[in-house]
Amino acid sequence: MGYVELTYTPGEDDLICTFRVKAHDLRRAAEAVAAESSIGTWTDVMTMKEEIRERLRARVFEIRDDVIKVAYPGELFEKGNIPQILSSIAGNIFGMREVEGLRLEDVEIPRSIALSFSGPAFGIDGVREKLKIEERPLVGTIVKPKVGLSPEEHAEVVYRALRGGCDLVKDDENLTSQDFNPFEKRLKLSLDAVKRAEDETGEEKGYLPNITAETQEMLRRAELVKELGGKFITVDVVTCGFSGLQTLRKHDFGIIIHAHRAMHAAFTRKKDHGISMLVLAKFLRMCGVDQLHIGTVVGKMEGEKEDVLRIRDAITGEFYGIKPVFPVASGGLHPGHIPALYSIFGKDVILQFGGGIHGHPDGTEEGARAVREALSMVLEGKPLDNPPPALKKAIEKWGISETL
Amino acid sequence: MGYVELTYTPGEDDLICTFRVKAHDLRRAAEAVAAESSIGTWTDVMTMKEEIRERLRARVFEIRDDVIKVAYPGELFEKGNIPQILSSIAGNIFGMREVEGLRLEDVEIPRSIALSFSGPAFGIDGVREKLKIEERPLVGTIVKPKVGLSPEEHAEVVYRALRGGCDLVKDDENLTSQDFNPFEKRLKLSLDAVKRAEDETGEEKGYLPNITAETQEMLRRAELVKELGGKFITVDVVTCGFSGLQTLRKHDFGIIIHAHRAMHAAFTRKKDHGISMLVLAKFLRMCGVDQLHIGTVVGKMEGEKEDVLRIRDAITGEFYGIKPVFPVASGGLHPGHIPALYSIFGKDVILQFGGGIHGHPDGTEEGARAVREALSMVLEGKPLDNPPPALKKAIEKWGISETL
Repeated sequence: MGYVELTYTPGEDDLICTFRVKAHDLRRAAEAVAAESSIGTWTDVMTMKEEIRERLRARVFEIRDDVIKVAYPGELFEKGNIPQILSSIAGNIFGMREVEGLRLEDVEIPRSIALSFSGPAFGIDGVREKLKIEERPLVGTIVKPKVGLSPEEHAEVVYRALRGGCDLVKDDENLTSQDFNPFEKRLKLSLDAVKRAEDETGEEKGYLPNITAETQEMLRRAELVKELGGKFITVDVVTCGFSGLQTLRKHDFGIIIHAHRAMHAAFTRKKDHGISMLVLAKFLRMCGVDQLHIGTVVGKMEGEKEDVLRIRDAITGEFYGIKPVFPVASGGLHPGHIPALYSIFGKDVILQFGGGIHGHPDGTEEGARAVREALSMVLEGKPLDNPPPALKKAIEKWGISETL
Repeated sequence: MGYVELTYTPGEDDLICTFRVKAHDLRRAAEAVAAESSIGTWTDVMTMKEEIRERLRARVFEIRDDVIKVAYPGELFEKGNIPQILSSIAGNIFGMREVEGLRLEDVEIPRSIALSFSGPAFGIDGVREKLKIEERPLVGTIVKPKVGLSPEEHAEVVYRALRGGCDLVKDDENLTSQDFNPFEKRLKLSLDAVKRAEDETGEEKGYLPNITAETQEMLRRAELVKELGGKFITVDVVTCGFSGLQTLRKHDFGIIIHAHRAMHAAFTRKKDHGISMLVLAKFLRMCGVDQLHIGTVVGKMEGEKEDVLRIRDAITGEFYGIKPVFPVASGGLHPGHIPALYSIFGKDVILQFGGGIHGHPDGTEEGARAVREALSMVLEGKPLDNPPPALKKAIEKWGISETL
């Protein structure tokens, strides 16, 4: 078929994909993947022109064990259109009979495509500036229980968490606007709670309401956040999807976008099929989220250290001058994880504790205090023995996780 | 933890999920899945209230081998918000350490939630009415090569395919608006081609431009289709995502929405992890697409007969009066598959042939003619021996696939 071309050297406008392929006949599978994801199909067609084949076909330029690299001419893609790019390089190919398993492991995006998107409006520096926090990890919490609190109860938890020492408090992924806790009322009361906590602590604080919805409702919610002086929003980026997310980013509300990645593991987790979190993270940076959950290494979610750090590097490293995304570690964390988390992630990370704060025996405020205490000790290079009272109780409940 | 309650009988407002679970400790995994997807987390929290636990927790009411059924109180969900529902029942749970594999196999949606969405505006009857075709499968093609033709060349292929006998011609999933074939010009020329073909054949025809993009650009493209008198649009529903798709549907352009499902197999294909196509199809019907790719059984894409027919039944069967979606079989089909396809799908199906039309030795028009010839013979109950000339050449190239 002519899609394998091992002597080919990719050009600077090529988009390069790395696939792991499980197939009876690897070379045949490589041909089929490159064809289906660019200009070809299962049979020769009379409408094909030699000039199109030459200019636009994808080329498999490397086959090593079960890993193939494919170069796609930049021309194949519509600039500024993430769904179109995914429909090409991550579309029909996952369902082809020629492959038993296929995983899009990595993607290298050329400058011309990357710069057709906005990237983060704030990124790490912008978030730090907004919160006036320079040299330490940020600490946040997710209101728990995930759903069920009234707006008043919700705002009280926000207030307690911020007073205790959290920089940020977010809604969980499945709280948007339900009857028991409608969006607008929750937003108003929670932003009031932020103000009170800011006044009392003298620190800048943030509340991250979850605006996930149909696109126009989502824009309406973001607009409301802006009107009421909010600095952040949370979006469930995978279940919302890229069309909606791009629209949100394009509106440039001047609000920091926090990306919750609920549902990603439906396609990122298995090593022999699907799309890696690394690829998803690169597209999310390009699209322009400011904060992104990347895994914890030590908490309730799967994700090996090496993979998590590769994702971290991809969203914070150099990328045509596009701003770095603030990595978020969230899921099953408690104060006893902080030494390990700091040794893994360093200072440029947002550490989120849900149960690890609201599960503190003395409640949310003491839970948040325990987190800040642990962070202070770690930043001073002290081990967590001899902890102050709030942290002591947390450690009695959950212990100290070993530094990796 | 108290999320397993095998004596529980789901109420009529409960949403019910069937999961296949791979775990070392199945009961523990069941607890964790139900907790994380409703109100719980990995540890007890002080902010939990007994009344919330009682009213809003998910309940595992059946465990049979590795399959569990979970009932979610309808109150947990925001009506009219598919991303929120997915963030709950198909969110964080796929990444939990307690499970090694987790697949959302099926979902039963209660009336109150289902009817908070529009469903298809046209559905099977509406599409048939638009095309004035009552008693046979519709036949369509995808312009090939997938990308690379100019607008003029593209429109010529549209014209040839329709003249030869296709009812519908669609853009492929990775063609939206690239430099070599910008959307607006392609749309105008292709709709002109439809008009010419309609005049010449006396049949109603449709062109299905792919409008997939960021939400507002997508709306602009749909508006343009409407202004220019188009009857159909194609959307890559998975890569676009539900926020954008819901917005499109809500705008009620009066245009038939054809759903291409590129990327679905990244999470639907593996039997031990992810989300089934059946679940995706149910959400797409609720959201309101009119036509949906469901598999071919016999073509280039994987998908077993039993699964494909279950999806067909889910999108065409009774669902609180919501209109049925027109099933589309597409991918690697040629005229020799038509006897098998008719025996599998009957008349309510759109049969799409890409390479199987444009790969005809005499080109697109003869390819389309061969398809219509084969369909006529099958409808008259004739085997495909003694075929007319166009069909004869197709069969010489691709053969006749056995009836299943």
